[in-house]
Amino acid sequence: MLSVEEALSRILAEIRPLESVSLPLDQALGSVLAQDIVAHEDMPPFDNSAMDGFALLSQDSKPQAGQAPRLRVIGGVAAGYVAQTRVEAGTAMRIMTGAPVPAGADTVIQVELTNSDGPQSEWVEILQEVPPGNNIRPAGEDMRSGQTILTRGQEIGAWEIGILATLGYAQVQVVRRPRVAILGTGDEVVDIDAELQPGQIRNSNSYLLEAAVRQAGGIPQRLGVARDTAKSLREKFSQAVHADLILTSGGVSVGDFDLVKDIMHEQGAINFWRINMKPGKPVAFGKISGIPLLGLPGNPVSSAVTFELFGRPVVRKLQGHTRLQRQQIEVVVEQDIQERAMRRHYVRAHVTQRAGKFIARPTGNQGSNIMTSLLQANALLVIPEGGATFKAGEHIQAIMLNWPED
Amino acid sequence: MLSVEEALSRILAEIRPLESVSLPLDQALGSVLAQDIVAHEDMPPFDNSAMDGFALLSQDSKPQAGQAPRLRVIGGVAAGYVAQTRVEAGTAMRIMTGAPVPAGADTVIQVELTNSDGPQSEWVEILQEVPPGNNIRPAGEDMRSGQTILTRGQEIGAWEIGILATLGYAQVQVVRRPRVAILGTGDEVVDIDAELQPGQIRNSNSYLLEAAVRQAGGIPQRLGVARDTAKSLREKFSQAVHADLILTSGGVSVGDFDLVKDIMHEQGAINFWRINMKPGKPVAFGKISGIPLLGLPGNPVSSAVTFELFGRPVVRKLQGHTRLQRQQIEVVVEQDIQERAMRRHYVRAHVTQRAGKFIARPTGNQGSNIMTSLLQANALLVIPEGGATFKAGEHIQAIMLNWPED
Repeated sequence: MLSVEEALSRILAEIRPLESVSLPLDQALGSVLAQDIVAHEDMPPFDNSAMDGFALLSQDSKPQAGQAPRLRVIGGVAAGYVAQTRVEAGTAMRIMTGAPVPAGADTVIQVELTNSDGPQSEWVEILQEVPPGNNIRPAGEDMRSGQTILTRGQEIGAWEIGILATLGYAQVQVVRRPRVAILGTGDEVVDIDAELQPGQIRNSNSYLLEAAVRQAGGIPQRLGVARDTAKSLREKFSQAVHADLILTSGGVSVGDFDLVKDIMHEQGAINFWRINMKPGKPVAFGKISGIPLLGLPGNPVSSAVTFELFGRPVVRKLQGHTRLQRQQIEVVVEQDIQERAMRRHYVRAHVTQRAGKFIARPTGNQGSNIMTSLLQANALLVIPEGGATFKAGEHIQAIMLNWPED
Repeated sequence: MLSVEEALSRILAEIRPLESVSLPLDQALGSVLAQDIVAHEDMPPFDNSAMDGFALLSQDSKPQAGQAPRLRVIGGVAAGYVAQTRVEAGTAMRIMTGAPVPAGADTVIQVELTNSDGPQSEWVEILQEVPPGNNIRPAGEDMRSGQTILTRGQEIGAWEIGILATLGYAQVQVVRRPRVAILGTGDEVVDIDAELQPGQIRNSNSYLLEAAVRQAGGIPQRLGVARDTAKSLREKFSQAVHADLILTSGGVSVGDFDLVKDIMHEQGAINFWRINMKPGKPVAFGKISGIPLLGLPGNPVSSAVTFELFGRPVVRKLQGHTRLQRQQIEVVVEQDIQERAMRRHYVRAHVTQRAGKFIARPTGNQGSNIMTSLLQANALLVIPEGGATFKAGEHIQAIMLNWPED
């Protein structure tokens, strides 16, 4: 049996990031940059005032024989405008936060440190001496024209969007998001709005995987459920020709009725692996008509967990991410956990932070057919191959399922 | 000056969750349940086989004088079908994983523990004695008809989607997502594709806030930039009548040109607060024509940070979440951090996990006008009011910006 690590590395070796596309900035959130972002101007673009107050020459702020200097106010400049006159010795100009510092002035004093006759005052008294550059944000203080600010491969979060907007990148080159076709299989599987007939279950996997693909940054496309016939499978696969990845669930185990394997072999090169893990074990990987295909087990819990461990990294790599794996931390188990399986066991658990410690509580019956074990689970505890016992209070490794990859 | 906590609690006291709507399951990811989810059937709905193998009577698996018992194979049952004949003593039925256990049989033996003449074999030898219930997943083992599985107020993640699908919830009642109108203000602010004229800057805040609102679960609507005239502001606010929340940036400080305040007072009840924090400080909150309005500072860094601390909790509360604040943990500072400000300081930082410890590195120049301090920042370090010095290796509280609320 393959180890999880070996399987993942074989899979990822076959995956290449997709090509880049140009997106309007307001659609780029969560994408990965396919270009370096260079500032084409200084930011801020001009010396500007950090305060509402008066622009003046610093030398004019010196007290005269203990008296506050009184300057003539020659006008005002608001943010978005440029003063048409120069500030000369003995004069000052009213200035608003963000407005360009007028020519001649070398400093700004905030309004609270002045006296005047109100907003239209023709004079201002300077109540404190201020050095040159006071309250002035110099051009280029934040970013310099020509400087590389973001680099290819970085993920675009909300704050990066703000920086791109500041720099005028209304369009941005990003790696295209993968289209992921999702196919359920099995004569027993019916759609979710169906009344169940004896022997039937609903297609939970496709909906779960659709949501998980979306969270991973992919664009999911549910193809419905293929019946256990070669014809039905061929028909469904033919709908996936524009996908960048095909996910199937079910049909990869050893049973007589598992046609998926045969069709896969017919249309491409597929490996069927038994992976040394539970839940999970049977996973298929290969290509069908040139499109990577990841075949997950039909069992919902196994399907959910194997998507996390194998599917999500694939979707992320296609999308240009280089951080592909969830963070793993050491947590404290709240209750004894005992496991005797030979395979590595991923225990669904809820981890909370209490008093600086991360505490894990398994989410009930861990049978691989028990979907309620997925409820409230935000982590997978890793029990090594061969089994182990963890006493309450002992440490165990946990894969944190809703922390970002690192 | 208000403390951050006091301001947040005053704001949240005015916010009520929105009404519920019915969504198709494939659009419910990330929403909050507005109904309890009750199982209307047992899950699994019927006793079914956990393995490919043979269904039989356990008593027939007992070796006969040291010989493996040989049973007559009376047919097969695949997943999705129901056996039409009964398994009687001395007979067995081929069974596939997930198929309903046929009447009469009380156990299943996996194919690996049998001998037969291939897939069409009319006989099977049972190589190991198996107890009743072996490899059978009983009806209702996972969920019982009538049992409440998820409750109102829970967030719907990918795994909850799987459970809802299993239970046949093709539509689900969730709290409606808030529509958030976003308005930039200021004569100096131009759109992001504009060539900058002297004195101008680009509208980075609206794009940053649009992305941050989306990440918080809201539906953003950018209204563009209002000029610094009463007419322009009134016009823009009139476009926000269908919003559940209005976010403005800029126009809330003390300057002569800050018309936003006047218009807000004219159209609603607005408080202007100085909050004891940096970056940030001036924040407005109130209602305009009955719609909650949160006025953030114009400075991009202040706008980004105040949205995290005040805007995101509001968007989440509107959307029905009860966990409104990001997790805070103790981290180790990698370098000395010294701060003498009287206001509480939120230092943008990058936190990484190394050898079980969370290490924080401030992201450069922390001036509130320095947007590059947002780059790579995934945490806000909290420096208490009055200032403090943290030596390299000491602990400090960090708000984790990309961990889920807890």
